[in-house]
Amino acid sequence: MVQLIEYDEASAEVRAVYDDIMTTRGTDWINNFWKALANHPPTLRRTWESIKEVMAPGALDPLTKELIYLAVSITNGCGYCIASHGAAARRKGMTPEQHAELIAITGLANETNRHAAALDLDIDPQFR
Amino acid sequence: MVQLIEYDEASAEVRAVYDDIMTTRGTDWINNFWKALANHPPTLRRTWESIKEVMAPGALDPLTKELIYLAVSITNGCGYCIASHGAAARRKGMTPEQHAELIAITGLANETNRHAAALDLDIDPQFR
Amino acid sequence: MVQLIEYDEASAEVRAVYDDIMTTRGTDWINNFWKALANHPPTLRRTWESIKEVMAPGALDPLTKELIYLAVSITNGCGYCIASHGAAARRKGMTPEQHAELIAITGLANETNRHAAALDLDIDPQFR
Amino acid sequence: MVQLIEYDEASAEVRAVYDDIMTTRGTDWINNFWKALANHPPTLRRTWESIKEVMAPGALDPLTKELIYLAVSITNGCGYCIASHGAAARRKGMTPEQHAELIAITGLANETNRHAAALDLDIDPQFR
Amino acid sequence: MVQLIEYDEASAEVRAVYDDIMTTRGTDWINNFWKALANHPPTLRRTWESIKEVMAPGALDPLTKELIYLAVSITNGCGYCIASHGAAARRKGMTPEQHAELIAITGLANETNRHAAALDLDIDPQFR
Amino acid sequence: MVQLIEYDEASAEVRAVYDDIMTTRGTDWINNFWKALANHPPTLRRTWESIKEVMAPGALDPLTKELIYLAVSITNGCGYCIASHGAAARRKGMTPEQHAELIAITGLANETNRHAAALDLDIDPQFR
Repeated sequence: MVQLIEYDEASAEVRAVYDDIMTTRGTDWINNFWKALANHPPTLRRTWESIKEVMAPGALDPLTKELIYLAVSITNGCGYCIASHGAAARRKGMTPEQHAELIAITGLANETNRHAAALDLDIDPQFR
Repeated sequence: MVQLIEYDEASAEVRAVYDDIMTTRGTDWINNFWKALANHPPTLRRTWESIKEVMAPGALDPLTKELIYLAVSITNGCGYCIASHGAAARRKGMTPEQHAELIAITGLANETNRHAAALDLDIDPQFR
Repeated sequence: MVQLIEYDEASAEVRAVYDDIMTTRGTDWINNFWKALANHPPTLRRTWESIKEVMAPGALDPLTKELIYLAVSITNGCGYCIASHGAAARRKGMTPEQHAELIAITGLANETNRHAAALDLDIDPQFR
Repeated sequence: MVQLIEYDEASAEVRAVYDDIMTTRGTDWINNFWKALANHPPTLRRTWESIKEVMAPGALDPLTKELIYLAVSITNGCGYCIASHGAAARRKGMTPEQHAELIAITGLANETNRHAAALDLDIDPQFR
Repeated sequence: MVQLIEYDEASAEVRAVYDDIMTTRGTDWINNFWKALANHPPTLRRTWESIKEVMAPGALDPLTKELIYLAVSITNGCGYCIASHGAAARRKGMTPEQHAELIAITGLANETNRHAAALDLDIDPQFR
Repeated sequence: MVQLIEYDEASAEVRAVYDDIMTTRGTDWINNFWKALANHPPTLRRTWESIKEVMAPGALDPLTKELIYLAVSITNGCGYCIASHGAAARRKGMTPEQHAELIAITGLANETNRHAAALDLDIDPQFR
């Protein structure tokens, strides 16, 4: 429904973001997420700048950050996000074993989150 | 609403699980989650065995596992789980800076998951 | 934040709904959900009529219906709903053992729902 | 899996709802949502009457109402709903720029909702 | 993306689980969910054992359990799960009328869960 | 659990954001959301800049934007967000009648989103 904006037809403003994405990631192509966001350049720019800042190496390493991103995407059932952040995690070194463990943890957390909701628990003072 | 089963009043079956929790974690108390689950010993046992297996050191280290658990709990808005797994993560070494980065990633993933849903994106063949 | 509309101060239109709620349920009080919805009588009326129609005995018995309602409320983490539909289920005969099994199923479904999302599964033709 | 009930094969009860949908909307076709709901006429009727009442012009204008509907559908990741309510919003005048802003707001709200959950905030007294 | 492990190529450990699934269910085939989980045998085994234990006849009968599973899957919008647990429910006797009522209840619970959240309700003491 | 950073104890970087928030909003106080985010100044700054950009008047007016924010917050069951964005909407002119209609729409969208998921609908070509 939303048109994908290819590099060749993009405005200078959009191309600047595309160039920064490819430079930052060391890739030579742009995925559909950005091509669709590019219909609204301010959202393209703002979202990319947020991703670039938040996902940069920091107190957490890039792979750990990507694993967290993937676990959230699985929890929300976002198919595109699971595919794109799964690929990103593999590119950053996620092994099949780590992937399998991530899926197990994500599933289990979703399970016990509902146990806790159902049981209407007071937070133990030791956790404060 | 659900009664909390304290150690002193627990059956041998429940005490065995409580003992294993405390031994595995190196603690001397049981938090409310388990005390509430203990009203149904099969669920207590099964859930604890799952947690013990899934959260043990593996291809992912225990802190990374706990961070993933916390990110899911935040996404689901489970207050008790955020408190308990936040405490567990701190016990396993999560620094305030890492906590802040985890919150930023979790928020951002929830944002872009909705961008992707709204835009109805085809998955790029490169991600397959 | 939203004012609760008590019976004595309610309009005739609101009282008629309150009366029908109490008659249908065989109770002599109105819970906060309806008192808050009563600030907007059309929503009060429409919601009550929907509940009355959907939760009436049909191809599914009233207890089964209430169990389904409770499982959804747990999945969504709605504290008020878990309390009110938990109480309704007990009034309709839910035993503690059934409650425990419901919590276990709800948790497990939330877990495997995420496994399935993570694994991006094709639906087996046998399920069609 | 669920059969779609076409106008020609529908019962009088179902046709009456279909006719009202087309008259109210000024269209000459029925979308799959209603054709699938028509397998259970009471749900078809009740859902249509709710939509008709809730989405009618009121204190909020029809476009604003449709934008709210669309934002919820995006948050829930419902592909069919995003398509159908996106089309409805365009029919009621939503511009591409408004669509882009709606997506940005919906994404951002999902982000800060998780920040707030993670930080376990007390509600400021000024908000009460 | 994840490879499906067919029976003929599976390890003895995986085959043992597949055999137990088919024996328990009285079927002669394995659905994609298990074939994908089989990439990580501990998760395959643990998940199957949980399903087998939780979904066995107990205080709730197998059909009621499957209905609860299906309602959760609908709430989470998990397409594969809706298909597989819908099929399982039909196999256990769910009629079209019961299916329609389940959909109506699940929808309504999701609606009133949001009413309750929006209205920020105190839990009535009678529900405690 | 997270410390609230008051203006008097804040760094110059944090104060600059606080000042901009108060100037932009025409208020003389900072709510807990920002005081908690201020533990991580980059997230404080980035989040505020996003809010400021996204919620500024544009193709959608500020009240409509706030209504969309509120509907998402209700869907996610975020108590703090419902309180803060409900207050913001009232400050921007939301009437009680508009609030009631928003709650009704948000509830209904959550209901029909599940109907659509349950029915596994093909998207009508007319919506493309």
